[in-house]
Amino acid sequence: MHRFFLKTLLITSLLATNIYGQSSDVDALMIKKIYDHTLKEGQCYAWLDHLSNNIGGRLSGSHNAASAVEYTKNLMLMMELDAVRLQKCMVPHWVRGNKEVVEIVNSPSIGLKKLNALSLGNSVSTGPTGITAEVIEVKTLDEVRELGIEKIEGKIVFYNRPMDPTKIKTFHAYGGAVDQRGSGPAVAAEYGAVAAIVRSMTTSLDDVPHTGSTVYKKNGKKIPGIAISTNDAELLSDLLKKETVKLYVENDSEMLSPKESYNVIGEIKGSTYPDEIILVGGHLDSWDVGGGAHDDGAGCVHALQVLQTLRDLDYRPKRTIRCVMFMNEENGLAGGKKYAEESNDKKEFHLAAIESDAGGFTPRGFGFSAEESVFKNYYNNFLNWSPLMEPYGIHFEVGGGGADINPLKSQNGMLIGLRPDSQRYFNYHHTAIDLIDAVNQRELELGAAAMTSLVYLIDNYGIK
Amino acid sequence: MHRFFLKTLLITSLLATNIYGQSSDVDALMIKKIYDHTLKEGQCYAWLDHLSNNIGGRLSGSHNAASAVEYTKNLMLMMELDAVRLQKCMVPHWVRGNKEVVEIVNSPSIGLKKLNALSLGNSVSTGPTGITAEVIEVKTLDEVRELGIEKIEGKIVFYNRPMDPTKIKTFHAYGGAVDQRGSGPAVAAEYGAVAAIVRSMTTSLDDVPHTGSTVYKKNGKKIPGIAISTNDAELLSDLLKKETVKLYVENDSEMLSPKESYNVIGEIKGSTYPDEIILVGGHLDSWDVGGGAHDDGAGCVHALQVLQTLRDLDYRPKRTIRCVMFMNEENGLAGGKKYAEESNDKKEFHLAAIESDAGGFTPRGFGFSAEESVFKNYYNNFLNWSPLMEPYGIHFEVGGGGADINPLKSQNGMLIGLRPDSQRYFNYHHTAIDLIDAVNQRELELGAAAMTSLVYLIDNYGIK
Repeated sequence: MHRFFLKTLLITSLLATNIYGQSSDVDALMIKKIYDHTLKEGQCYAWLDHLSNNIGGRLSGSHNAASAVEYTKNLMLMMELDAVRLQKCMVPHWVRGNKEVVEIVNSPSIGLKKLNALSLGNSVSTGPTGITAEVIEVKTLDEVRELGIEKIEGKIVFYNRPMDPTKIKTFHAYGGAVDQRGSGPAVAAEYGAVAAIVRSMTTSLDDVPHTGSTVYKKNGKKIPGIAISTNDAELLSDLLKKETVKLYVENDSEMLSPKESYNVIGEIKGSTYPDEIILVGGHLDSWDVGGGAHDDGAGCVHALQVLQTLRDLDYRPKRTIRCVMFMNEENGLAGGKKYAEESNDKKEFHLAAIESDAGGFTPRGFGFSAEESVFKNYYNNFLNWSPLMEPYGIHFEVGGGGADINPLKSQNGMLIGLRPDSQRYFNYHHTAIDLIDAVNQRELELGAAAMTSLVYLIDNYGIK
Repeated sequence: MHRFFLKTLLITSLLATNIYGQSSDVDALMIKKIYDHTLKEGQCYAWLDHLSNNIGGRLSGSHNAASAVEYTKNLMLMMELDAVRLQKCMVPHWVRGNKEVVEIVNSPSIGLKKLNALSLGNSVSTGPTGITAEVIEVKTLDEVRELGIEKIEGKIVFYNRPMDPTKIKTFHAYGGAVDQRGSGPAVAAEYGAVAAIVRSMTTSLDDVPHTGSTVYKKNGKKIPGIAISTNDAELLSDLLKKETVKLYVENDSEMLSPKESYNVIGEIKGSTYPDEIILVGGHLDSWDVGGGAHDDGAGCVHALQVLQTLRDLDYRPKRTIRCVMFMNEENGLAGGKKYAEESNDKKEFHLAAIESDAGGFTPRGFGFSAEESVFKNYYNNFLNWSPLMEPYGIHFEVGGGGADINPLKSQNGMLIGLRPDSQRYFNYHHTAIDLIDAVNQRELELGAAAMTSLVYLIDNYGIK
């Protein structure tokens, strides 16, 4: 693009200023101040660099997770908040081990072929001798149930239903496929399978395997669950059309005893309504591979930047602004549950809770949800703020929240999820390439600025 | 992010379907078909891979530009359009040469230091002996005028006004800084400067220099113009606060004789109103460094994909859909001018012209402009289509078009620019890293689907 093209763009910019300038000057100016500050002085990218690059993957119970607790607590202490504390919770402690092999054995057409594989989180081990068995490909959990013990017993079940590329929001495609990873091994085990292989959760065709939690049934049989890359899933599926395929599978992952860990909590006390809490948060734990940059280092530094910006701008909130780094979202939700439990015991009221857990990409808006009566009565008040946020490309939509904050719904406040652009998210999600290089500084900062602006509006006007 | 979070997202999706389902079922279904097809069967990413990776940078007059003409013409021929032709235009033929040196000489504090540099397009050469002179830093063209001959003569002028990071749309920041590149060398030359160094046009702090055209005044004095990376601009500026700095500059770029080149044009004839043309286009030329992937290979394959999708879906347009690969947008606009000239001579009428020249990122909307009376009368008709496009994250805004299509304004149609997310654009713009790796396949495809959908609506309803 060339400079002659810019005249019309500049005119548009002036028009936009006029439109919102007429409606609510003070708010528009404050929001502009928030954006200007975040884009010029924001520290969230540097924090994320440290979190994902220097500390690295932060699976619950790991040394890195403990380092991340320490690091973010210290960041909060440096902000001189009114209170900073750690909230204890017991987290599962799963370790990947050192071996993850998925290998096609003795194929008449391609011989031996090692696939790109990652054990699913919580997976049991094959034991040191590994497992060799015939593969059966299925598209759904129900297909396993229909095939039954007769066809499944003694086999390795290969779940290969791709994420639907026609879903515009990629989370919808994820939602339509992730049952294979979450429940696939447990269901296959019921019918006597010896292991389960799962196509990675991404629409991209590449060599990168994606981990993520699998859940066994209480007292149910446990078999190893391993993800393979989408390219390898295609290869395996093609091969199965031509011949019987045997796989050799070996992994040595292990669930150890639960460990003590922490949510990290900091707050600025409200001057007028200290009992009305506005929460901003993300989850501090991530998968062990990669750096957990988008998932969910980005959400953590978004939330931290909200407090830092309010501090830098000398903003004294009317309501209590609380920042929470939740622990163990990925494989247990221990932090989110613990936080809500203690909050309910204290009879706290979260007027609003905003979670960022969809990556550090350009924010496109916020999604809202609440108990039905709350939503019906108050969502329109949020929509009235739309003209203030639209110049920043922020749109409001129905449906939101986040895994960690959803347990707060019964407090009858509004649950809100930041909605970044979702197109690239599942290229990185739960992989070894979810690193700082995958995050663009401006895109990250814009997310923090959008959250800070919404916090400012809620703080100033409440939600009623 | 974790799977428990998805329930509300899925509910939102259903709600959205219901809302537009009630308003215009047939159009909504057609648009869904367009998106589904583009996301499942789109070829634009593979075309872009060839264009930017196999062919490479395509500066006007170069061998690569000629290859790109041939390649896109053949793509159009394979689509079995109603007409495919080349439209001759004479383009400037500038060549970069082999030498681009900007070096700090004999600094007391850092000694010799080579900076990351790229000659500006159209720049003259220093000659083989190079230029050594003292540097003077300025922020604006006016500053040069104020300093005058006394302070400027014999010096190397260093333009160092950064792009404003607080502009939400990065094109606004570009528009506010690019006069330094476009006119900086010419203005400095008027006051006796011997060369001009320009801070690269990006908000990112990195080591990547950005080229782009500079324009000399007719019969004015010409001095070499060279861009340096933003990191090096910061370094040079810091050094200038401490000491007098001399630079050694050498380049051997050259403007050769104009060369024959071509716009590539293909169309599907309209069945009912063949004289009402809906143009889709991008520019085929790019800078010589890098692969011109975002600028503007993306726009070219967007436009090509529009035709391919309409063909694949057996859509017979009422109006003529014309796809144009414009030549020489980057340093002369010969293709755009030639196209409008010939179109006016033939008394053609472009009902609408849509240009994609802002990268292959997730589309956020379209910008519209037209002659005042046209705009006043017809823009609202476009806004009526908003509910059909909003489920795809597409919003309409005032102000749009594109450098190549703007000369068509006098035909009294609507000029429209695709507006992708702009945050990452100036990380790659006019650099050696504007390569296919910088483009995400889904983001690219969504741009093509948005353009095809808009073309469908205009074709079906006209603009009145």
